[in-house]
Amino acid sequence: MSLFLHVVPVTEAIATLRQLAERRQSERVPIHESFHRVLASDVRADVDIPGFTRSVVDGYAVRAADTTGAGDAIPALFTSRGRIAMGATTDHPVGAAECMYVPTGGILPEGADAVVMVEQTELFGDQVLVKKPVSHGENVLFYNEDFAQGGIVLMAGRRLFAQDTGLLAAVGCVQVPVTRQPRIGIISTGNELVTVNERPRTGQVRDVNTYAIAAYVQDHGCVPVTYGIIQDDRDIFRAALARAVSECDAVIISGGSSKDDRDMAAAVIAEQGQVLVHGVAIAPGKPTIIGRCGKVPVLGLPGHPASAFVVLCVIGRHLLDGMTGLTSAAVIMVPATLALNVPSAKGREDYVRVSLKDGIATPLFGKSGLLNTLVRSDGVIRVPAESEGLETGTTVEVYLW
Amino acid sequence: MSLFLHVVPVTEAIATLRQLAERRQSERVPIHESFHRVLASDVRADVDIPGFTRSVVDGYAVRAADTTGAGDAIPALFTSRGRIAMGATTDHPVGAAECMYVPTGGILPEGADAVVMVEQTELFGDQVLVKKPVSHGENVLFYNEDFAQGGIVLMAGRRLFAQDTGLLAAVGCVQVPVTRQPRIGIISTGNELVTVNERPRTGQVRDVNTYAIAAYVQDHGCVPVTYGIIQDDRDIFRAALARAVSECDAVIISGGSSKDDRDMAAAVIAEQGQVLVHGVAIAPGKPTIIGRCGKVPVLGLPGHPASAFVVLCVIGRHLLDGMTGLTSAAVIMVPATLALNVPSAKGREDYVRVSLKDGIATPLFGKSGLLNTLVRSDGVIRVPAESEGLETGTTVEVYLW
Repeated sequence: MSLFLHVVPVTEAIATLRQLAERRQSERVPIHESFHRVLASDVRADVDIPGFTRSVVDGYAVRAADTTGAGDAIPALFTSRGRIAMGATTDHPVGAAECMYVPTGGILPEGADAVVMVEQTELFGDQVLVKKPVSHGENVLFYNEDFAQGGIVLMAGRRLFAQDTGLLAAVGCVQVPVTRQPRIGIISTGNELVTVNERPRTGQVRDVNTYAIAAYVQDHGCVPVTYGIIQDDRDIFRAALARAVSECDAVIISGGSSKDDRDMAAAVIAEQGQVLVHGVAIAPGKPTIIGRCGKVPVLGLPGHPASAFVVLCVIGRHLLDGMTGLTSAAVIMVPATLALNVPSAKGREDYVRVSLKDGIATPLFGKSGLLNTLVRSDGVIRVPAESEGLETGTTVEVYLW
Repeated sequence: MSLFLHVVPVTEAIATLRQLAERRQSERVPIHESFHRVLASDVRADVDIPGFTRSVVDGYAVRAADTTGAGDAIPALFTSRGRIAMGATTDHPVGAAECMYVPTGGILPEGADAVVMVEQTELFGDQVLVKKPVSHGENVLFYNEDFAQGGIVLMAGRRLFAQDTGLLAAVGCVQVPVTRQPRIGIISTGNELVTVNERPRTGQVRDVNTYAIAAYVQDHGCVPVTYGIIQDDRDIFRAALARAVSECDAVIISGGSSKDDRDMAAAVIAEQGQVLVHGVAIAPGKPTIIGRCGKVPVLGLPGHPASAFVVLCVIGRHLLDGMTGLTSAAVIMVPATLALNVPSAKGREDYVRVSLKDGIATPLFGKSGLLNTLVRSDGVIRVPAESEGLETGTTVEVYLW
């Protein structure tokens, strides 16, 4: 392994990870367990929605044309032909200047093409005064206006949110085809690491990465499998990596934090497979490693937690999204105005933490190794590799955490 | 119950729900189960972070002042005083024009206040040529620069995301104080409803709300408890509501969809407690009910799924957030430029679905009852009650789903 890394651009690192990420097979889960999972295949409507032309208000079904010009002063006059009960149909079509009362969700009678809300009418015996005109289709959902039977309602690759769950219910998709959740092995290396239960002595730090990476992996639809702290010893690390590779769909290693340790990780990955990238033009996060052992992708993150987290968000995410089959927008980018100048070195992408308020992105300067700016920030902005910095007032995209 | 609702502004409906929402008690959960939960009390650092001044790169610890003016042409010359191993300390302070090699994460020797990256040096015997100046603190994290022991690192009311989980690990918070997850009873009413397993006949629709509401409730840190479809029969509904109130911390009812049904819901809530709001100046969603049975808040949503979902997002969310104790920003608002005119009636808040791309919000016009615009949209924009509409080019805030 070379002392100086051969650094590749962020886009190349992402493309390499995307190629390694094989989409998991699919499985079916009950609808109430499908929330946040990724659809494995398109879902189609098994029925027309609505299955019948229905009113969306309580009111009088009419022919819209008959209400033209109706107002408070000169209402339009209709003859009431009775009421339609919920779920009931009628043999009596609505004719000119006729109306029928229909409840919200009720079936519209033949002839009618709109509903006047009951609040905009007055009843006089069997005469109904309509005080406001309605247009064709007003307060009505027509037969299959929302979805036609057989049409695609949700596309493969979409992460399912609450409204999607509702739609799955509407089309009777009770066993939902989703991608299997990839198992992601997590290894923390470094002689300086102690468990979270221990009190670090001078020179020691707690193992933050195992927890932050596990939570991130979980949030991205994968199952974290943690292997704890592995000492900077080739034999121990070799055994841990081999075990993780055999048990998981991908492996994420963080640290050790010294050059020698990084070389250990890269060397052992090379022994068991192949190192594809060792060094990325990103700050923080330069010593990132991308490799594979057999078909199992291996991502090596920097040991420092703040750097590891940024690389995980910017680059590692693509591995997870690729494996879960996610194709819908996975990241929320918010445009904002930069409150301060951000200097940057040319030739690397800088990811600078910002707080975001009222459309203003304020950089949280300070060392990239700080955890406090990580939790105080709302996200990061990207300073492109070809740029020497961004000026106050520039419009930037904030990549929200 | 009156035929015409007494309509209150959205802000009043939200304030009423907020008052009803009692924050749940707290419990402690293991750190790896704390992800997405809401912190019940402030978390403080149990140690200084870092606990020692450490290098964040592999390189030479120096006195920064001695590197002034160093460059490729005229490097600064340092005498190497050896290497510091990971976790090791040294009795030899770094003096003028002296340096010591220190690995990433290693303890900085006394006297040094910066580290020159190894890539910016050249080694000649025991002489080190430094080709780039460093400033005080560069490539170093000072003792307790990130967090001081005893200081608050995360505040109560925050939803825990991946980086927060990492920070909890850093401060040894292995049993995390979080609010208990409220149990939310979910009742769907309406004679027209059939289960998702059935094929709706004319006049019938599947029970979408149970699933969409359960997923939303779950996404907001609560535990959904579903009571299925309840027919529009006062005795049956009375029994279902009483059971839900006795078993849950709050109850959300949707539908039935006709005026008579709504009145049934309000009447039965009034029998078992109190109706506080019946009608909100919001479109869609006017017939919303807010009440309580004993100390249990009850929210009545419109029966139509698309309307129910909007009310849940805009108003109901405050009930859930209040009960989970969430105080951090819960909604992502993205500024955007409106692509088309949006007409609106004065006197009510309109929530119009939009798709969002490259800072442009395009309204998805169409009836508010459609599910397809709900899943095709990225969020909604709010047209204030005092406005008669918004013009093309206006800057709007998109409330993301």
